[in-house]
Formats: sequence, C-alpha cells, structure tokens
Amino acid sequence: MKQLTAGLLGSTGAVGQRYVAMLDDHPFIRLETLMGGESAGKMYGEAARWLSPTEIPRAAARMKVRSTSPENAKGCDLVFSALPSEAAERVEPRFAKAGFNVITEASARRMDEHVPLIIPEVNPSHLSLLDVQRKRTGWRGSIVATPNCTVTGLTMVMKPLLGRFKLRKVVVTSMQAISGAGFPGVPSLLITDNVIPYIKNEEEKVADESRKILGVAAGGSVSPANLELAISCNRVPVVDGHLETLYAEFSGAVTPAAATKALTRFRGAPQELHLPTAPEHPIIVRTEHDRPQPRLDRFAGSVPGMSVVVGRVRNGIGRNSIQLTLLSHNTIRGGAGTAILTAELMAAQGRLGR
Amino acid sequence: MKQLTAGLLGSTGAVGQRYVAMLDDHPFIRLETLMGGESAGKMYGEAARWLSPTEIPRAAARMKVRSTSPENAKGCDLVFSALPSEAAERVEPRFAKAGFNVITEASARRMDEHVPLIIPEVNPSHLSLLDVQRKRTGWRGSIVATPNCTVTGLTMVMKPLLGRFKLRKVVVTSMQAISGAGFPGVPSLLITDNVIPYIKNEEEKVADESRKILGVAAGGSVSPANLELAISCNRVPVVDGHLETLYAEFSGAVTPAAATKALTRFRGAPQELHLPTAPEHPIIVRTEHDRPQPRLDRFAGSVPGMSVVVGRVRNGIGRNSIQLTLLSHNTIRGGAGTAILTAELMAAQGRLGR
Amino acid sequence: MKQLTAGLLGSTGAVGQRYVAMLDDHPFIRLETLMGGESAGKMYGEAARWLSPTEIPRAAARMKVRSTSPENAKGCDLVFSALPSEAAERVEPRFAKAGFNVITEASARRMDEHVPLIIPEVNPSHLSLLDVQRKRTGWRGSIVATPNCTVTGLTMVMKPLLGRFKLRKVVVTSMQAISGAGFPGVPSLLITDNVIPYIKNEEEKVADESRKILGVAAGGSVSPANLELAISCNRVPVVDGHLETLYAEFSGAVTPAAATKALTRFRGAPQELHLPTAPEHPIIVRTEHDRPQPRLDRFAGSVPGMSVVVGRVRNGIGRNSIQLTLLSHNTIRGGAGTAILTAELMAAQGRLGR
Amino acid sequence: MKQLTAGLLGSTGAVGQRYVAMLDDHPFIRLETLMGGESAGKMYGEAARWLSPTEIPRAAARMKVRSTSPENAKGCDLVFSALPSEAAERVEPRFAKAGFNVITEASARRMDEHVPLIIPEVNPSHLSLLDVQRKRTGWRGSIVATPNCTVTGLTMVMKPLLGRFKLRKVVVTSMQAISGAGFPGVPSLLITDNVIPYIKNEEEKVADESRKILGVAAGGSVSPANLELAISCNRVPVVDGHLETLYAEFSGAVTPAAATKALTRFRGAPQELHLPTAPEHPIIVRTEHDRPQPRLDRFAGSVPGMSVVVGRVRNGIGRNSIQLTLLSHNTIRGGAGTAILTAELMAAQGRLGR
Repeated sequence: MKQLTAGLLGSTGAVGQRYVAMLDDHPFIRLETLMGGESAGKMYGEAARWLSPTEIPRAAARMKVRSTSPENAKGCDLVFSALPSEAAERVEPRFAKAGFNVITEASARRMDEHVPLIIPEVNPSHLSLLDVQRKRTGWRGSIVATPNCTVTGLTMVMKPLLGRFKLRKVVVTSMQAISGAGFPGVPSLLITDNVIPYIKNEEEKVADESRKILGVAAGGSVSPANLELAISCNRVPVVDGHLETLYAEFSGAVTPAAATKALTRFRGAPQELHLPTAPEHPIIVRTEHDRPQPRLDRFAGSVPGMSVVVGRVRNGIGRNSIQLTLLSHNTIRGGAGTAILTAELMAAQGRLGR
Repeated sequence: MKQLTAGLLGSTGAVGQRYVAMLDDHPFIRLETLMGGESAGKMYGEAARWLSPTEIPRAAARMKVRSTSPENAKGCDLVFSALPSEAAERVEPRFAKAGFNVITEASARRMDEHVPLIIPEVNPSHLSLLDVQRKRTGWRGSIVATPNCTVTGLTMVMKPLLGRFKLRKVVVTSMQAISGAGFPGVPSLLITDNVIPYIKNEEEKVADESRKILGVAAGGSVSPANLELAISCNRVPVVDGHLETLYAEFSGAVTPAAATKALTRFRGAPQELHLPTAPEHPIIVRTEHDRPQPRLDRFAGSVPGMSVVVGRVRNGIGRNSIQLTLLSHNTIRGGAGTAILTAELMAAQGRLGR
Repeated sequence: MKQLTAGLLGSTGAVGQRYVAMLDDHPFIRLETLMGGESAGKMYGEAARWLSPTEIPRAAARMKVRSTSPENAKGCDLVFSALPSEAAERVEPRFAKAGFNVITEASARRMDEHVPLIIPEVNPSHLSLLDVQRKRTGWRGSIVATPNCTVTGLTMVMKPLLGRFKLRKVVVTSMQAISGAGFPGVPSLLITDNVIPYIKNEEEKVADESRKILGVAAGGSVSPANLELAISCNRVPVVDGHLETLYAEFSGAVTPAAATKALTRFRGAPQELHLPTAPEHPIIVRTEHDRPQPRLDRFAGSVPGMSVVVGRVRNGIGRNSIQLTLLSHNTIRGGAGTAILTAELMAAQGRLGR
Repeated sequence: MKQLTAGLLGSTGAVGQRYVAMLDDHPFIRLETLMGGESAGKMYGEAARWLSPTEIPRAAARMKVRSTSPENAKGCDLVFSALPSEAAERVEPRFAKAGFNVITEASARRMDEHVPLIIPEVNPSHLSLLDVQRKRTGWRGSIVATPNCTVTGLTMVMKPLLGRFKLRKVVVTSMQAISGAGFPGVPSLLITDNVIPYIKNEEEKVADESRKILGVAAGGSVSPANLELAISCNRVPVVDGHLETLYAEFSGAVTPAAATKALTRFRGAPQELHLPTAPEHPIIVRTEHDRPQPRLDRFAGSVPGMSVVVGRVRNGIGRNSIQLTLLSHNTIRGGAGTAILTAELMAAQGRLGR
C-alpha cells in the first residue's frame, strides 16, 4: 500500500491520544500533523496529559502541536477527527471544504443523510454515499463518520444474525466503561461503589445509528434497517470495555448453535483485504460460562482490542429467540481502531491520496 | 403485638449478621438464641467477623453462640435461618419437625411444592400452603421460604403490572452487588475494574421463583404464573444494591404514566397491617433521568432498604411495552428484611407463638 | 442554649450539602438562608445535585436559594461558608465587614495571622485572636477558620501525645478519600484501579496548619508548635474517610500502652460543655489488628463521623517512638462537623448572637 | 547462553501463571514440566483458571499437569517454585535433595541462614552461600529464595542510597495491590470502597528481608544491614502494583538532586551481563508531581514490569533526609520476574545445568 500522511484534530484529548498510540508504528499511515486548540505551539509530550499505561510514542512527543486550521494540514492525505461533538460540527466541514478527507468519531454528523456511517466489516458499501455528498456540498474533500462506542460491537454482532436469520427485535442492556465518557468525564464521586443507569442521548444514538449502519445505501441515501430496538444504557466502574446483554427475536427458529456458527464465521471486507488493523476474527465466541469479561477480554483478537467477544449464547424465550453477552473495547474497536480501519479500507478502495 | 422470641441459624455469617442488626431494637421480636456451627461456645462479639459499618449491637455481642440444635432453641416462637443452602437442607427440617416455625432465606426448599415462597406485599395468601405442608410432612412446626435477592425487587415491580395490565413477557438484565455472594464471596481479583456476566444458577432461580410467587396457591400447591422471562445476571463492583433493567411486554396497550401510577399506588398486606418493618411505600418511583443508583438509593424508604426504587419508566417498542430500571437492597429487602417482615405477617395472622 | 439562625455560603455544592444535612435537626442552630451564586432564585431541591445517600431534608429542599450577598443574610447570627477557596477570599470579608461571624472551611485565610484556626477539642483558646482581628480589620463581624480535612484527624491525635510526651518529629502518609476533592473533583478515569501519590498544596497545608493549631495564641498571634513534619499525601479510591499512618518520635521514652491511654482519655472543651455535635470520645482506639478501615469506621462515634478512630498503636524504632494508624471522616470531622462544633463552642462562649 | 529446561511447582495458581506467561518465549529457559497437586493429569489449559488479560500460551495450555514429585522433574536444569508457604516448606527440600536447583518465591525459607535471598541487581554475591548450603544439608541441588513483593522495590531503591549516602533510618508506608494476596485472596466485600491497614506478618518480613538482602555475605552467612526501619503495610483496591512512600534519614547531608542521580545511575550485574529479563534501567525516576501511579506505571521499563519507578524525590526534615514515592509491579518485579532474572544470573555464573 502506498504511504499516506494523516492529520489529527483534537490530538491532545483522551480520544486523540488513542490515535497517536495506535498509529505509532502503522505500516502505511503516518501521523504528520497534530492539531489542538489550546495547546498550539507546545510540544505534544507536554500538551497531552498522557492517560495510557503505555509510554507516549517518542516521535509524537517531540512534535509541535499546531492550531486547528486546514492550512496546517497541508499535504495530509486524510484527517482523523477526535474532536468533541460541538467543535466537530464547526471545524470538520472547513477541512472537507478545503479538500481533506475527514474521518470522524464525533457524533455531530453521523445521522446526516449524505454522511456514510461506517464499520468496515459491516457496511463498506455505504462509502458510495460520498459521491452524492461531494455533489450536494460542493466539498473537494469529504466526511466519513464512525459510530458510537456502544453501537460498534452491537452492530457487528447483529450483522451476521440479521443476514442469516431475519432478526426482528432486540433488547439490549449496556454496562459501559468510564473511558467512554472521555476526560475528565465521569466524576469518581458519582461512580465509585455505584452504577449510573443513564447516559445522555446514548440510547437514541444506539437505536438510530444501528438502523442506519444495518440499512441499505442506494440512490445517495440510506434506508434504515427495519429493526425493533429497546435499549438501556448504564455506566459501571470499569476502565475500558463495554459489556452488553442482548435478547434477540427472529422471524423464524434459531438455535444457539446456529447463531454461534454464524457469528464465528463472520468476515468482512477488511479481512478479505488483509488490512493491517483488521483482526483475523471480527467476532470471537467464547464457550466458558463466565465470559466475556471487560478486564480479561477487552484486548482480545489478533489486533488487540479489535475483536468483539461474545459469550453465553443461549436460548431466549421459545424457539425464535436467543440471548448472548458481548464485549468490545470502547476506545479501540468502538473508537480509534474502527476509524483507522476505515481509513485503511478507503485507501484500499483508492478513495484516499492523490 | 405480643412479644415473640426468635432463634437464628447461621448467626455469625454475613447473612446472619443482618438479622442481628435489624432485630436489635425490634418492637416485638427478640433474638434469644444465636446458633452457629463452629463458633459454638464463643461470645457472639468474638465469633462474628462483623462486616457492617454500624456497630455490632451490644446485647448480641455478649450472647454466647450455641450449637445448631433444636434443643438450644427451646422456647423460641420462631427460628430464622441464615444458613447456606446445603446446611439449610439438612438442618431446617429437624427444626420444623421439632415444632419450630422456620423462616429461611436459603434456596434449598424454595421450589418445594408445599413450601410457601413469600414476599409479604405480593403473595401473603400463599401462607395457606402451611396447612398442607404440616399434613404431608407430619411436622409440628413449618418452613416458610423467602426468595432470592434478585427476585424480590423484580417480583414486587411485576406484581402491580401483572394485576393491572396483563404482563406477558419480560426481559431482565441484573447488575448485582458483591454482597449478594455472601462472605468471602467474590474475590476482589475477579471483580475489580470488571463485570462478571454470569452468576451460577441465578437466572434459573429468578425465572422459577418469580413464576411461583406470582402464581396462585390453591388446593395445597401453587400454579405458577404464565409469564415469559429472559434473564441475564451480572455481578458488578458495587457493595450493596441490585440494579435491574426491565423490558416488559403486555397483552394490551400500556403507557409509562399508567405504569408509574400502578407502581406508585401499590400497597400490600404489610402496609394495611402497619407492620413495623413495612415501608410506607413498597415501591418508590423517581422521575430524575439518572435514578435509581445503588449507592444513592439502596437505603430508600421509610424503613431504610425496604422500598424498591424504580426509575426511567419509559416506552419500550410499540404501544404494548414499557421499560424501566429498578433497585432493591439485596441484603435487606432481598434478604433479612423480607424474612422479618414475613415473621411479622405470620404473627399478625396468628401463625406464630403459642 | 438560645436559638441561633445561620446562613450558608456555597450551599449547593458538595461541601454545602453536608451542612444542610447535619443542621437539619440541630437543637439550636437553624439554617435560614441558603446562598449560591448561579442557583439564586431556584428551589434548593432543584439547585443542589444531592450527592448523599440520605434524602435531602424536606425543609431545605423547599427553600429558595438566594444570591451571595450580606443583605440576604440579614438577621442571621452566623454564616457558615462552604465556598471554594478563591470565592471565599473575595466574599467572606464582605460578610465579616457587614457584621457577620463567618465560620469557614475554605483554605484562603487559615494561615492569616489574626484568623483563629480552630478544632474545638484542641485549641479553643485561639478564639481569643478575634479581639485583635476586629481591631485590626475594623470588621464588626469576624472570620474563624476550620482546618484542612487531613489536618483535623492528625492534629487531634497529636494533641494528647504532644502534651503528655513531648512529640518531636512526625512522619505521616495519608490515603485520602475522593470526596476530599469536592465535586466534580477527581475524574474516575484517573483513580479507578489506581492511587494518585500527590495532592496539590496538601502537604504544605498539613504541615503549616498543624503547627498553627498546636501552637500558642498570645498577644494577638499564634506561635507555631515546634514540630518536625514529613508528609506524603495520596488519593485512594475510597468514597469517604481519610486514613493516615503516623510514625512519631518523642524526646523521651513512650510505650504503646501509655500512648493508647493518653489518646483514649483525651477530652476537650466540647465534651465538658456537652455540645450537641461533640462525640463522647473524640478519639476511639481500637485494638483489632486490622482497624481502622474507612468503610467500617468512618461513621464511628456517638455523633456519627465525629470521632477519630485510631488503631495499630505499636512500637516504632527504639524506645522513643511509636507508630499508629488513624482515620477521620473527611467531610464530617474534617469538614462541616468541626465547623458546626466551632459554632456551638462560640455560642457557649457567648461569642455569637446579639 | 545454552538452553535450560525448567520445572514449575504450583503451576496452576495465580503465582504460577505468571511464570507460564513470562517464560512463554524466553530465549533460553524452556518450561518443560508443569506440576500441580490437585490438577495432576489434566491439561494445563483446563486446570488453570487463567487470571490474566493476555491469552494463555498455547504450548502450555496443551501440556499435561504432573503431580508434585522430583521424578516428574527429571531432566530439568532448575525448578521454579510458586508454591504457597506451607507446601513450599514441605516440598522444596525434597527437590533440592534430589538434585534440583530450586528458585522459590515462598516465604518459608527466606530467612534461613544458608538460603541466599536474591535480587540480582542488589546482592548477586549472596549466591556464594550455596556452597555452605550444600555442605550443611548434603543436598545435591539447592534452594535460592526471592523476596517478598513489597521488599523488592523498596530494597532496590535503598541499595544505591545506602551505598552512596549512609542510609540510617527509613519510615515506609505501603499501599499494596490485591494481587499480592494471591487467589482467591482478598474478598471484594472487604476491599471495595476501603483500605485495609494491615497485612499479616508483612511488616516483619519487610524489615527482616530488607536487612538480609542489604547485608554482607561472608563465611557462609549474612550479616544483616544496620538499618532502622518503621513500616506500615496497607491493602488498597488496586489490581497490580505496590506503591510505597519512603522517608529516609542519612548520617550526612543529602539532596534530592544527588539522590535522584544515584537512583537513575544504578545498574547491577543483570544489566552488565545483558540478561534477557534485565530492564535497561532498574530504577526509573519520574519528575512529574503525580507519578508513579500503579495503573500508569506498573509496566514501566524496557522489560515491562521489571523497572522500579520512583517519583516525588524531595526534601524530608532538615538536611539529612529525603522523601520519595516508589512503585513496583508486585507479581513481576516483586515475583516471577525477579525469580527468572535470578535463574538467568545463576545460568550466567555457571551455577545451573550440568
């Protein structure tokens, strides 16, 4: 693959740091421009309050943070955005207009009609929306979004079930890690010895984004999947890794064994294309009674943190339903990892670079 | 109410300690005999590794622990059992045979045909099984069971919904506190920064016990409620308080407002009889978005820990379903509190004492 | 005691809420005016994000929050201040000038020459500074400060050792609860599965304030105690309760038994005056190997949370030193409780009211 | 280095699993025999309840666990022991007698006169005790011990201070991780939202073992270092990583800068010999105010978890003392890592193999 250079918006925050860590030794994407509002001018190593147990990459630590402006990204083949939602809404279109292909984690434009909302294993064909996007906006560049951290694992699990068995209704309860709220995020005084049974706007996002991702892109927009969803989102005192219980009803009969087979065999475009950030198995099904667990399974997969781990696949109510539990690393598979994988997919499709 | 004297089986363990704490200043039940296998002969204050932030009651601390034998309970009007399941299975019938009315938290006999499984607000009429129980077993005493800690809150919430709206199907995910596993219980190495998505036999208990409690007692046995249940039980790093998300489908239309009204108005026999351990409101519905929370709501109610707290009552899928979140204190309402309330109910019905 | 009415600055924050909770049924101090910057005009029940497991007091919930201004405190006999340090520095002198006796938890003026820094059991005589304070400032009212939450327990333990045995050198390591940082305070992402070995300015405060409190007030200022201190402050994932290990060297020989006796017998003015918030025993010494523990001992004492719990009193190095571990509830004894006790002491001394 | 084959006693427990993980791709030590009492006959993958987030090594998972007997270790050049103390006391001498060189983490024989207690960077010369050991016991093999998990980091930090500045007196407070108690170890009900200020026998071990390690081996025994120690050991709710605060007094003047230099420059035999498990820097000194932290720093070093991280080097009381905070990974540097490094050192010295 030919070399690509990337810029990073919101580089010093908790989300941005994941990109810096994951791209440190990427085979063909090189982070060349680190941008950040208030830190502009400082060395990245000083500007970022590094939150990860791994060392800050040396090369990045010595780079100077630049202000958030398209001129500063000159020469970049793509721009990752780790901006919070409001800043994203304001800033990203300026970069798209200036000719940059922006891949964003922000929620701001995920539901925009012409913005593809991508999980590379699930709906790579939605990137076709970009042609209409450019036409309607007049942008020389583009905006591609990646989903909410709770949606990613859930949708990856629903995809093979949907295709194979006519998934009809889903009841989901999430137990989400504190890192999902960013930094400073959840005050320790609220979450220690506690569970918070509510995350603002999260349940709506999970419902809407899931239906869009599992929908059909045609004629420049997406027809959302016809799927009934009931969702309860909770915050638990866990550092990383979103756990979700799933009760699924189908139009016909399903067995746990058949569902397990469909989940285990699931592969997508990233696996076929052997993209560097693609895990060998997008979904790993464990058979022990008490897995997946956030602390033990969040780094599962041949690319750590990129596989969704499923366990407890079992009967639901009657012959038409099953239950299972799933886990995905919220800031890797549910964040930077899926964005980087999307960049790799776009590169493979010739959509990046000049 | 006339004074009753009580014995306590398994008094030194984590479960037993709750009885000692709750009965310390009870208006008419006096703990007279503390029994415990290995601690017999020691002072209770030395034998019990006191696990609660409140001081060990002085009177109890100075009582001598006796060995587990019906002779040692002589004179007691009732015997509470805080024994683990296997010991309970072996020991409790000996006490029943010797003429004691045993009220037990153990799971061993909850599903026995002639053993009433009681939540005083929900199914006081099931105590009528005792007549058949005595006939079949030849016991002079009796055994009454109280439910699993996850069942209690759930069933109290389902009861008013069932009566009023024809509840048909329920999908439940629990997030259970570590104290639910007793002592030593869950190793800290397993639950710190983690969730364990499985609790042995718990989901079966929740399904079976709920149906029995909500069923109809007639002719010496219980016809279980016809209710479809899908249950996922999880352990979270919280000290006390079981949180449960509930998705409920009904045969007809239901609104969150109507469900809220039914839950709020729910009262049972303990409230009518003004029993001392009965909370004024068995169910408290909170309207804030982010409640109930274990740490903030576990001691809710006019009798601390005896009210179930419900929140987030909202639409489910379509017009025939709702969702909500509920919390109950697992060792009070889900343990000693319900057992003591059962004793109070039996006393009020003239079933205890001589 | 005659009735006193009080105002509260910073009433809606985490610190302010403690005053509202503790004064709810005070025998002679009635909270009449709740002040708060941004919440002015709202009902207190809406304005305060209530952080405690106990219910918000009903009377307070229905009071209207007023803006922070001396006119709004008219008629109050004293004003408690739960303001953060910067606001305190600006606001409190305006109240003192307007004639109010301000009792403040803020660090802003604790080390001011004419501000008494009071723990009622330790240095009640320092209130004599108020005469000089009024003279120098021209205030009709006054400002009295209470110490840092880590200082309070430590100083109470040092006091009887100092008096009895000539304490010379102290090495302290604190393990401080998250509530000590206020709200939102410590991000959960920083403290989960972690200890933070640093709290900004805390070690300096502990050293300076301890020496002032244990010093001698004479001639309008305090000569600090001649005491060598080495202090390490750490934040641990505990909700409430500061734990401290203490190594103490003396000028002469000391035994653990003698130190235990001195600690156990310690009493102060609040005990002699039978003030309502005074615990019967300011210091409780436990003899079990593994106490005090924050979760089990933080509410110790006849007034919950007002006693300091000491344990593990044992030999140090050689005959002239001992070691021990102490615990105090940081927001009660280390916060609102000591401030309220100070108000009670001032009332008993005739320093409050008209 | 020539290839060595190793046996492992207590292979299925929490401690044993660390050896299996760390030796998975060792350049010259190959685990050939996994022993375990109750699991004998099972595959290791089934017998071990794998507690680590990393996958169980495939080769080990398929090995059959053998019973604990010298015959089963036939052909092994050394035997690591991860046995609990009592079993170690009974079992290890049988292996030494049968000709095996046993390297043990167990506390049982650490203080035995002829057993070297080794930290390879600190006291490699103590291995000379082995000649006397063989003579006195008549063993063909030998027993070498590695220290308690709290001692290792502490002693590594004291070593350069002792050599350079005449360390005289040390006051230490530890905040120890739950994994230090093994499995099942500390019940979650005891440590959640809590600190336990006591660990059985730990303070005695820290004092005795530190003095032995820093002592001088001559004439077949060790003269312990003349060092005054006051130690307080605490358990905190952290998964891995022991944090310790240290106040140190010297016979002469010391500055933080000079101490930092001595710590930073410290190297030992493992570094000179370029042993594979030797970190480039045995001690890493961080200059940020708020480091080291267990979650961020426990895997520090070129060999993850093998470097001790020091921070907050600062003045103590007067010119002759300093304070600092240190962290070491208790199951790597404080456990399996130091044992493996000891094996590497013994191999380099020609003490292993035939």
